[in-house]
Amino acid sequence: MNGAQSLIRTLVDGGVDLCFMNPGTSEMHFVSALDSTPQMRSVLALFEGVVTGAADGYARMRGTPAATLLHLGPGLANGIANLHNARRAETPMVNIVGEHATYHRQYNAPLTSDIEALAWTFSGWVRTAQSSTTLAADAAEAIAQSQTPPGQIATLILPADTAWGAAERMAAAPPLTAAPRVDAERICEIARILRRGEPAVILVGGQAAREKAVTFACRIGQTTGARVMGDRAVARIERGAGRPKIERIPYPVDQAVRLLAGTRHLILVGTQQPVAFFAYPGKPSLVAPPDCQIHTLAAPGEDILAALADLADEVDAMADFPNRYPLDRPPLPTGDLTIEKIWTAVGALMPEDAIISDEAITSGRNADAWTAGAPPHDWLHVTGGSIGQGMPVATGAAVACPDRKVLSMQADGSAMYTLQSLWTQAREGLHVITVLFANHAYAILQGELRNVQAPSPGSRAAQMLHLNDPAPDWVKLAQGMGVPAARAEDADAFVEQFQRALAADGPSLIEVLI
Amino acid sequence: MNGAQSLIRTLVDGGVDLCFMNPGTSEMHFVSALDSTPQMRSVLALFEGVVTGAADGYARMRGTPAATLLHLGPGLANGIANLHNARRAETPMVNIVGEHATYHRQYNAPLTSDIEALAWTFSGWVRTAQSSTTLAADAAEAIAQSQTPPGQIATLILPADTAWGAAERMAAAPPLTAAPRVDAERICEIARILRRGEPAVILVGGQAAREKAVTFACRIGQTTGARVMGDRAVARIERGAGRPKIERIPYPVDQAVRLLAGTRHLILVGTQQPVAFFAYPGKPSLVAPPDCQIHTLAAPGEDILAALADLADEVDAMADFPNRYPLDRPPLPTGDLTIEKIWTAVGALMPEDAIISDEAITSGRNADAWTAGAPPHDWLHVTGGSIGQGMPVATGAAVACPDRKVLSMQADGSAMYTLQSLWTQAREGLHVITVLFANHAYAILQGELRNVQAPSPGSRAAQMLHLNDPAPDWVKLAQGMGVPAARAEDADAFVEQFQRALAADGPSLIEVLI
Repeated sequence: MNGAQSLIRTLVDGGVDLCFMNPGTSEMHFVSALDSTPQMRSVLALFEGVVTGAADGYARMRGTPAATLLHLGPGLANGIANLHNARRAETPMVNIVGEHATYHRQYNAPLTSDIEALAWTFSGWVRTAQSSTTLAADAAEAIAQSQTPPGQIATLILPADTAWGAAERMAAAPPLTAAPRVDAERICEIARILRRGEPAVILVGGQAAREKAVTFACRIGQTTGARVMGDRAVARIERGAGRPKIERIPYPVDQAVRLLAGTRHLILVGTQQPVAFFAYPGKPSLVAPPDCQIHTLAAPGEDILAALADLADEVDAMADFPNRYPLDRPPLPTGDLTIEKIWTAVGALMPEDAIISDEAITSGRNADAWTAGAPPHDWLHVTGGSIGQGMPVATGAAVACPDRKVLSMQADGSAMYTLQSLWTQAREGLHVITVLFANHAYAILQGELRNVQAPSPGSRAAQMLHLNDPAPDWVKLAQGMGVPAARAEDADAFVEQFQRALAADGPSLIEVLI
Repeated sequence: MNGAQSLIRTLVDGGVDLCFMNPGTSEMHFVSALDSTPQMRSVLALFEGVVTGAADGYARMRGTPAATLLHLGPGLANGIANLHNARRAETPMVNIVGEHATYHRQYNAPLTSDIEALAWTFSGWVRTAQSSTTLAADAAEAIAQSQTPPGQIATLILPADTAWGAAERMAAAPPLTAAPRVDAERICEIARILRRGEPAVILVGGQAAREKAVTFACRIGQTTGARVMGDRAVARIERGAGRPKIERIPYPVDQAVRLLAGTRHLILVGTQQPVAFFAYPGKPSLVAPPDCQIHTLAAPGEDILAALADLADEVDAMADFPNRYPLDRPPLPTGDLTIEKIWTAVGALMPEDAIISDEAITSGRNADAWTAGAPPHDWLHVTGGSIGQGMPVATGAAVACPDRKVLSMQADGSAMYTLQSLWTQAREGLHVITVLFANHAYAILQGELRNVQAPSPGSRAAQMLHLNDPAPDWVKLAQGMGVPAARAEDADAFVEQFQRALAADGPSLIEVLI
C-alpha cells in the first residue's frame, strides 16, 4: 500500500466516498489509486472552480463532505472563489491539494508557491502531510475537522512523496465533535426578553434556515409576537407548499433598513447581525436600528435545534402556526417572454423535490413570490457573493441526488465564470436543466453604479458593464460542452422546451433573451 | 476630483495607460472615472484569469506595465493562476484590487476575505490604501515598485471609500530604480573560470534570454568554448532567421541530465540553477551534475546586459559568431493532418514579426525545429507552469501590438481554463489566430503517470485524464464567444484556413483533431 491508497481508503472508511478533481503531475499517485479503491467515486471537472463549487453543492444536499483534488497553488487558487462561497455556506469539505515532494520544494521549481497562505484564507483547518506513513492519520483528522460544527473546509496539502511512499494502514476518523449546547441561562434570558412584548425579530440564518429550525422559530414567534425573518443568502432552504413562510432580509440597504425599522430586539439564530452587502456613501453598514439590542440565541456551531426547542418549551410555544405556503401553482404563461413568465413557468412545472441552484442575480429578485406555491423543493443561494457558483453547485447537487431534478437558474455574466460545469454535467449525465437569463449585461452593476452615487456613466464606463458586443451565444457554448441546448423566443416556446427538458434524462440548457 | 480620478490620472501620467478589468460594486467609482480620463484605455474580460494573463502578455511585449482591476478577494483569487505565471515571467504589473470601504470591513459582509494574504503569495509589493487623499501617492509608488528590476507585481488594494472620497491632486511616480551593476571582481572571477577551458555552460534565462543578451553570451561562448543554453520557459524570446541559435534545457529530467552531463561550471545569467519541473521517484531534483560548480554572473534584477558586455570585454570576445538560424521556411504540408504538419505550415506561413503564444504543451514539444527558419518572430512561454495562460497572454500581446499577428498555439485541456479570452479578442477585434490542438486528453499527464512510476492506469484512473466523453466542440465554443472558427480535417484544409485567417482582420480559431 502506498500513501495515496491509505489516504483514499481512510476517506472512504470515514464516509467521504466521492472526489471532484482536476489533477496534475503531483497528484498522479492519487489518480492511480482510484483503480484499487472502487468505493471512491471520482468526477472530473475541466476547471477548478467547478471542482470546489460542485463539492459545495454536493455537501449542501448530502450533509456530509465530498473531497476535492487540486493541483498545487495555482490549481487551488482557481478554486478559491467557490471555496469562499463554501466557507460562507458552512459547508464541510475535505480539500486536498497536491504539492511538490517534501525534498523538492526548496528548489523553487516553476510551480512552487505558498499553498498554506492561500489555504488559510478560507479553511478552518490546514495541514501539510509530512510522511506517507502518517498520511492516513492526517486524512482521518481532516474528515473530523471538516465536520466540526457548523462545518468547515479542512485543507490537506499532499506532497507527492507522501502519496508515493510506502504506507502500512488506513486510519479511523476520530469521533465527530458535537455542537455545544446553549446553557439554560441564555435560553431564559431570551425568553424573558421575548415575553416583554417589545418589537422583536428572530433572525434565522446558516443552519437555522433549514425547515426544522424555522418551524421552531415560527412557533416561538406565533406565541410571543416576535417576527421571524431569514438571512438573504444561505446554503440551503426548504420551500414550497406546506413549508413555513418567512420574510428574508433584502439586498438593497434601504429596503433592509425599512424592514427592520422599529425593532427593539434582534435575536440571532445561527447567524451574525445583518450587514449591508457593500458600503454605499451615506448609507449605514448595519441595517438594524441603532437602538436595537442584539442577542444571540445560538451562534453558528452551537446546537441550534436544541436551543430553539428549549426556547419553545420555555415560552410554552404553540404546537403549530398558520403561516405556511399553500400549494398554489401559478398558471402557465403565454405570449411574450418576461422574467416573471419564466419564473411562473418554473413554479407551474417544477416537480416535487426539485433543487433550485439560484444564481439568477437581478433576474431572480422576485423569484420567491412566483415559485413559493410549488410543491416542496430545495433552494440553494450564492452564499459568499462570489459569482460563478450557480452551475458548479447545481452540478454537485445533481451528483448527490441522482433521483431529483436540478434547476440551475443562471445569470449570463455569472455563468461565464464557470461554464465548464456544463461539460461535467454532460459527462456524468446529470439531470440539470440550466435556464440561462441572457440580459447581456452586468445588470446588477448598472444599478450599483447609481447606488454608490458615481456620476452617470458615459459610454466608456457603460462599455465595461455590457456583454452585448458581441453577445455570447449560449446555445453554441452549451452544445460545445456537450449539453443539448435551445433558445426560447416566447413564453410558449419556453414552456415547451422546459417540459421537454424535465422529461429528458441528462442535462440541457435553455437560453432566454430578456 | 475623487480618489478614483486621482488614481487613474496618476497611472496615466506614470505611463500606465491601459487597464484590463472585471469590476464589481466596490470598483464602480474607478469605472465611472474612465469617462473623465479618456487617456486610460479599458479592456473588459469576462473572467479574471483573462484579465491578469492579458496584463502579463501586454507587458511582455510593451515592456511597461498594464493595470488590472479586480473585484475583492474572490476576483483576485480567480486571477492568481496567471499572476503566478506573471511573477515567474518577471512581468511588471500594477494589480488593483477593490475592497470594502475601510469602515465596512469590520462587519464581515459576505464578500469579506483576507486580500493581503492572497496578494503576498505573488506580489513583490502590497499596500492597502488608507485614504482618498493619499491614494494618488500609493498609485505612484505602485508604478515605481512594479518596475523594480527585474519587474514584479505591485498590488494596490483599493477600499471603496478611498475611491469615492475627495482628492486634491495626482502624484508623480518616483524615479525608477536602476538595476544594480555587477562588480568588476565577479566579472573577473567568471572570466578566469571560463579561460580555464573546463567544460562550461552559460545558462541564460529571464531577461537574459532576450536577443541582445543571448548575442553577448554567444560571443563569449564562441571565444571561450563555453556552451550557451537557455531556460526552458521564459517570458519572451526572439527567434527566427538571423537570431542566435541556442539549446534549451528540456522538460524531461533524463534529457536535461544528459544535456548537462560533464559540465564542470554552470554560469547563471538572469536565472537560477535548473531544476526538475516536478519531483519523480528515483530521479534528481537538480539536473546539473553533482560536482558541477554553480556561478552567478548576474542574478535576476542585476544589470544583465552590462554584466555580459563587461564579461565579453574581459575575455576579448569575438565580435560575431556563426551560430544563427538561417532563413529556411519549411515546405507547405499536404495530406493527412499531424502535429508536425501543423507546425510546418505555421513555419511556412507566419508573417515577419509574428508573436507566438505557446501553450501547445505536448503538441508543441518539437515546435522549435519546425519554425526556427521562419522570419524573425517573438515566442512567449508558459512561465510558471500554471495552465490557462496561453489565450490570455495572446490577448494582451495583441492589444500591445495591434500591427502584428498573434498566433495562439493552444492545447485543448489548457484552453478550457480561460476560454473566455476569445470573447475579449472578439470585442476588441484583435488579430489573434488560435490553433486549437484537440487531442481530447490531458496528454501530458498520461506520460507523467508513467514518469512518477504509478501503476499502469486502469479504466477509472484513465477516465480522469481523458476529455473525450464528450469531446468539446471548439468550433461551437469559439463561435459562442463571437470568434469565427473552423475545423481542419487535413493539412490542405489547415493551410487554406490558416492563410485565410492571416489575411483577415480580427480573431479566428482553427480546431485541429490530432
